[in-house]
Amino acid sequence: MGKFTILKTDGSARLGEFETVHGLIKTPVFMNVGTVGAIKGAVSTMDLKEIGTQVELSNTYHLHVRTGDELIKKMGGLHKFMNWDRPILTDSGGFQVFSLAGLRKIKEEGVTFQSHIDGRRIFMGPEESMQIQSNLASTIAMAFDECPPALADRSYVQPSVDRTYRWLVRCKKEMERLNSLPDTINPHQMLFGINQGAILPDIRIEHAKQISELDLDGYAIGGLAVGETHEQMYQIIEAVEPYLPKEKPRYLMGVGTPANILEAVERGVDFFDCVYPSRNGRHGHAYTSHGKMNLSNAKYQLDTRPLDETCQCPTCRNYSRAYIRHLLKANEMLGLRLMVTHNLYFYNHLMEEIRDAIAEGRFAAYKKEKLRMMEEGEG
Amino acid sequence: MGKFTILKTDGSARLGEFETVHGLIKTPVFMNVGTVGAIKGAVSTMDLKEIGTQVELSNTYHLHVRTGDELIKKMGGLHKFMNWDRPILTDSGGFQVFSLAGLRKIKEEGVTFQSHIDGRRIFMGPEESMQIQSNLASTIAMAFDECPPALADRSYVQPSVDRTYRWLVRCKKEMERLNSLPDTINPHQMLFGINQGAILPDIRIEHAKQISELDLDGYAIGGLAVGETHEQMYQIIEAVEPYLPKEKPRYLMGVGTPANILEAVERGVDFFDCVYPSRNGRHGHAYTSHGKMNLSNAKYQLDTRPLDETCQCPTCRNYSRAYIRHLLKANEMLGLRLMVTHNLYFYNHLMEEIRDAIAEGRFAAYKKEKLRMMEEGEG
Repeated sequence: MGKFTILKTDGSARLGEFETVHGLIKTPVFMNVGTVGAIKGAVSTMDLKEIGTQVELSNTYHLHVRTGDELIKKMGGLHKFMNWDRPILTDSGGFQVFSLAGLRKIKEEGVTFQSHIDGRRIFMGPEESMQIQSNLASTIAMAFDECPPALADRSYVQPSVDRTYRWLVRCKKEMERLNSLPDTINPHQMLFGINQGAILPDIRIEHAKQISELDLDGYAIGGLAVGETHEQMYQIIEAVEPYLPKEKPRYLMGVGTPANILEAVERGVDFFDCVYPSRNGRHGHAYTSHGKMNLSNAKYQLDTRPLDETCQCPTCRNYSRAYIRHLLKANEMLGLRLMVTHNLYFYNHLMEEIRDAIAEGRFAAYKKEKLRMMEEGEG
Repeated sequence: MGKFTILKTDGSARLGEFETVHGLIKTPVFMNVGTVGAIKGAVSTMDLKEIGTQVELSNTYHLHVRTGDELIKKMGGLHKFMNWDRPILTDSGGFQVFSLAGLRKIKEEGVTFQSHIDGRRIFMGPEESMQIQSNLASTIAMAFDECPPALADRSYVQPSVDRTYRWLVRCKKEMERLNSLPDTINPHQMLFGINQGAILPDIRIEHAKQISELDLDGYAIGGLAVGETHEQMYQIIEAVEPYLPKEKPRYLMGVGTPANILEAVERGVDFFDCVYPSRNGRHGHAYTSHGKMNLSNAKYQLDTRPLDETCQCPTCRNYSRAYIRHLLKANEMLGLRLMVTHNLYFYNHLMEEIRDAIAEGRFAAYKKEKLRMMEEGEG
């Protein structure tokens, strides 16, 4: 099980260390999304080490419906399969079942759905999700939950959250059983619970209290950044935070922009993940210390500067805006790789700056200055 | 101008060193094709150094019709633009004008054609090709030629080759003029002439004699591997070789398979280029010491071995057949990158082995053993 140590607090912001069997995670941390056990944009696991990635996040649903978690178990688990020896977090598959798969049917046991790859019917409940994640042998498994739409009605949300709680109890029991089996790859696999409740504070709080009693390895806030405003998101974090165990890491799932992350760290969040850096990179948008830059803009045609003049990533140390723009225009894969590498570095480096600021007790000032600079617009 | 030193011969095979302003090229050499100033498959110039690439080859036609050589000149030339400080060879654009472009019209002055990108009419003759290559500032420029189909009629080939000779004289004169201009980026840009003549030995030989008198920096054999048999190709190399200057490098354009290269080295060829390693890599075919391997084959699904157990490339040092197969099946760009990296390394390493074998006077035995192993089939 993971040991979480809070080294320092600065307001509600926390500087921490999370010990895992795959090494130490310094928090706040941004996990880099590699859906099928690979970062999009042809970024290799060697590249990830070079850009300071601490945790890789893979998607249970995608690995289950295509290549198959049983194959990956036979290959020695996801770490060995993808050649990554640092921590891996796997999601539960729940979010994708509810957003990607077709024709789903929810029962107390779990969900029946159609694979978005071949249309085949698949059943997944708490036990199945734990089994798949145990086969993948990630460092941290996520509980199987339902993620109701942010703006869903109370009459939908309450029974959904109640069921998600019952599913969590089953997840915990099943994970304990799987971890104790002789052929398990990672007997120290951890489980994080997920708080749900759309944007209804009373449901969120009640659920947070319930799940906190289960003594899990960490707690996530799920179901945000799916349609509500940023203000609503921040309010929910503030409402829930006091009811999550102080001594456990908190993970805000699927969030978000650099500004979102700064605001959430200020409200006590430790773990993040988001597809923005890789997705935006593939669309020609670079994150810089002066805001986002759209490389398709003609003004970069002869621009010999790196994407961000203050950046030390492999892309910025070697290639110009003009060259990357040329590659993107010519549909050369290298252009996507250089963009994604830069954007992931930007996020990883942002977290490093955040950790330094908390360590030195100047997080509020750092956050203010960072937001001001990013609002200046393109560099 | 380049200085070519033959360090050792072994039969007709030559071990050489070609000094250029961008560093020494050890021959025989395989140049890695990066059409628009980037290797397909998201391979970076840092990767190229890691896999032992000596010369990068870019295509004049592609760079001219899309991004534009004038933009690249403003950026300081192709070396600076793509961040590659080793030698670059640019082709003349001739081959693409005759194979890719639409509605072309050949006159004594040059060729009018339509861009395959936007249909715009472009004129390119010897002077234009030299100007473009001078703007790109490659280490070695290629003469502008017509590449007649391998099986073309004598009545077509003879006047075409005669015109290619007159174009070569104009290329040489124009390159000398451009190299002497004050704003030229690379005043030491070299020019290689190209022997043509389809598979008609008498025309090939007569043309080889003519171009040899022009004292160029190197000589290419063009117009092969475009429809004739391998035997016909080897016969043409044998026929032409005695009439090319011994003290200049010889470049067999667009060739070929590992076996083609071994046969051509044995017949006195020093430079090679081919899209096979990158194209085959992108299609899931890996070169190995035991022949080509098709990763889509189900038998590799659980194969924990590297693509080639004897290979020291970054792909083979880090990833398994099963993982790469998974990536290719899931359309993950990383799969293409790992394949292309391996295949380019395979070719670069093959040339290193060839150089070692010539140095030690055992090329014939090496070639025989290499061909025998590759014929064994998939590993």
